[in-house]
Amino acid sequence: MHKNFKNIEKIVFGRGSFNQLDEIIAPIRKENDGFFVFVVDKYFEGKELENRIPKQAKDVVYFIDVDPKEPTTDQIDNLRDEVIEKNGMPSGIVGIGGGSIMDIAKASALMFKNEGSSVPYQGLNLIKNEGIYHLGVPTVSGTGAECSMTAVLSGPEKKLVLKCEWTVFNQVILDPDLTATVPSDQWFYTGMDTFIHCIESKSGINYNVFSQAYGDQSIALCKEVFLGENAGQNPENDEKLMMASLFGGLSLTYSEVGACHALSYGLSVVLGMKHGYANCLAFNHLDEFYGDAVNDFRGMVKRFNVTLPQGLSKSWTEQQITDMAQVAINLPFMWRHAIGEDWESKFGLEDIKNLYRRM
Amino acid sequence: MHKNFKNIEKIVFGRGSFNQLDEIIAPIRKENDGFFVFVVDKYFEGKELENRIPKQAKDVVYFIDVDPKEPTTDQIDNLRDEVIEKNGMPSGIVGIGGGSIMDIAKASALMFKNEGSSVPYQGLNLIKNEGIYHLGVPTVSGTGAECSMTAVLSGPEKKLVLKCEWTVFNQVILDPDLTATVPSDQWFYTGMDTFIHCIESKSGINYNVFSQAYGDQSIALCKEVFLGENAGQNPENDEKLMMASLFGGLSLTYSEVGACHALSYGLSVVLGMKHGYANCLAFNHLDEFYGDAVNDFRGMVKRFNVTLPQGLSKSWTEQQITDMAQVAINLPFMWRHAIGEDWESKFGLEDIKNLYRRM
Repeated sequence: MHKNFKNIEKIVFGRGSFNQLDEIIAPIRKENDGFFVFVVDKYFEGKELENRIPKQAKDVVYFIDVDPKEPTTDQIDNLRDEVIEKNGMPSGIVGIGGGSIMDIAKASALMFKNEGSSVPYQGLNLIKNEGIYHLGVPTVSGTGAECSMTAVLSGPEKKLVLKCEWTVFNQVILDPDLTATVPSDQWFYTGMDTFIHCIESKSGINYNVFSQAYGDQSIALCKEVFLGENAGQNPENDEKLMMASLFGGLSLTYSEVGACHALSYGLSVVLGMKHGYANCLAFNHLDEFYGDAVNDFRGMVKRFNVTLPQGLSKSWTEQQITDMAQVAINLPFMWRHAIGEDWESKFGLEDIKNLYRRM
Repeated sequence: MHKNFKNIEKIVFGRGSFNQLDEIIAPIRKENDGFFVFVVDKYFEGKELENRIPKQAKDVVYFIDVDPKEPTTDQIDNLRDEVIEKNGMPSGIVGIGGGSIMDIAKASALMFKNEGSSVPYQGLNLIKNEGIYHLGVPTVSGTGAECSMTAVLSGPEKKLVLKCEWTVFNQVILDPDLTATVPSDQWFYTGMDTFIHCIESKSGINYNVFSQAYGDQSIALCKEVFLGENAGQNPENDEKLMMASLFGGLSLTYSEVGACHALSYGLSVVLGMKHGYANCLAFNHLDEFYGDAVNDFRGMVKRFNVTLPQGLSKSWTEQQITDMAQVAINLPFMWRHAIGEDWESKFGLEDIKNLYRRM
């Protein structure tokens, strides 16, 4: 059985395409109560982009600070309940921001049509009804959230995804101009998320020619953006990194992330580290998993004078290391992909703890 | 304004994925009269694949010979009228075959829901209603018809496309095993269609980073399949060429074909030549448009001992050459892409006739 995957329904790509948002959502406004919810990264509040949001009288705009932590089940449920109570059922929801905002838009779209708390829906195909129309406008490139079937939510007990084909956006607007003002550290860490996606996709048993066609091209684009003659944040590379992110996400359609993402989840859950940064911390120590790609990564780190702290684990308690390893080992599909069907006979909690101790 | 394009809604890729067809269409059978129409390349009649079609009692299977000519408006209208008269409105239509079968499936799906002759709908966005569910199973790689918004039909007056977002397939099954038995000449000519799509996409004013990301990867895959160490028809290359075809089609989303396809249309309309073969005849003489890519192409021709006839134009009448040039010049968007906004001031009917005289 091969995966039958759901594509983003419609895509517009190009500089300034954000200006087409009003026209794109106009026909959708005929549905439900005719208004839209916009969830926007707080970074854009008071900035030029705020005035470009095609807000109509009944629309609701939320500026959301996603910096301290990733979206939670409570946050989604509260947003849904508040909108329905005050305004009714929206025609659609638009997310404008990075990966967390994409996840909020995707998860909320589903929860507008699925009753109760989002907690019992965390997992694969547990959602009962198709959500409302949802449109993603990524303003940072690298997460792949613009095309994935998942919306990552931290629940009271676990960090888990809402995953089903209805999670995928109905529409994505890829406007490279919107990524021009990303702070350089975030640009680097989020871009590395894509590079690492592709290397992990490539280095495991689920990889196939579909994943390779997307992944190899994404890696080539990442190398141009982070190691090429014209490396760095510039308009040409904003376009390339946006495509690399999309392709990296699509490479994962048939493949899987691996050791780095498993370790990174542990760092995020236990120590609250941001996803892209945690990936970089982990990837830097995974030569035996990812070989030369780790050297390429170190070249990129050097090229952009990124400081990756060393010896962090000295300040971690044994309990923290155990807790992180527990989070990581509870992602068996990642280890299975990275090590093989028989991974449990080769690799265990102690090995994972040792990987954390290197950091 | 950037194009807002419609994706294939769902894709399954992998060897043997054709076996998932029954399960995939099961939920769609609830719509309309619950039966499916299968349009299948006559090549498969009596072959093993015929027995693998998940035909149920009320389903209708047409084996269609597409070899002598491309699909016509009459053919689509007759198929639609016959099915509706005898069986009612189908739940969906499945096309199993090459580019012409893909076009028949796409065009019929639309015409089941749009009244009258298909002739007045030939053109861009002239279709009034969304069609029925349609699913494509390509058995030859290269046309890009699996992902395009167009269905090419020859009408009484012109060869033109039904083009709108509803033309795009709801589902595509990419099973590389199905392309294993393609006759070697068809394998070559249809594969070259993809290579030429990407070179034309690249060599013109509509090209952008989206088209490049798909096109460069498709070219790389074509070079592996037709020039690499392991070149030729084999299981690995069946997978690669299937991805190359998809990527070549997606490269054209934001770009355009050019001189070669314009000339090729003239050869097809006036002399009845098959599309892939006509492309090859024309491309071989377009060094000033496509430079080194024409040399790569000649290398592929040589590698597979393909005989491209020379001096054909000696047997053409002046009237035939004029007629072909008239067909070609009536594709201004191709010349505009290939030569520039001001192409009409640089290039005219006589130049096109001279290109035909080289062949």
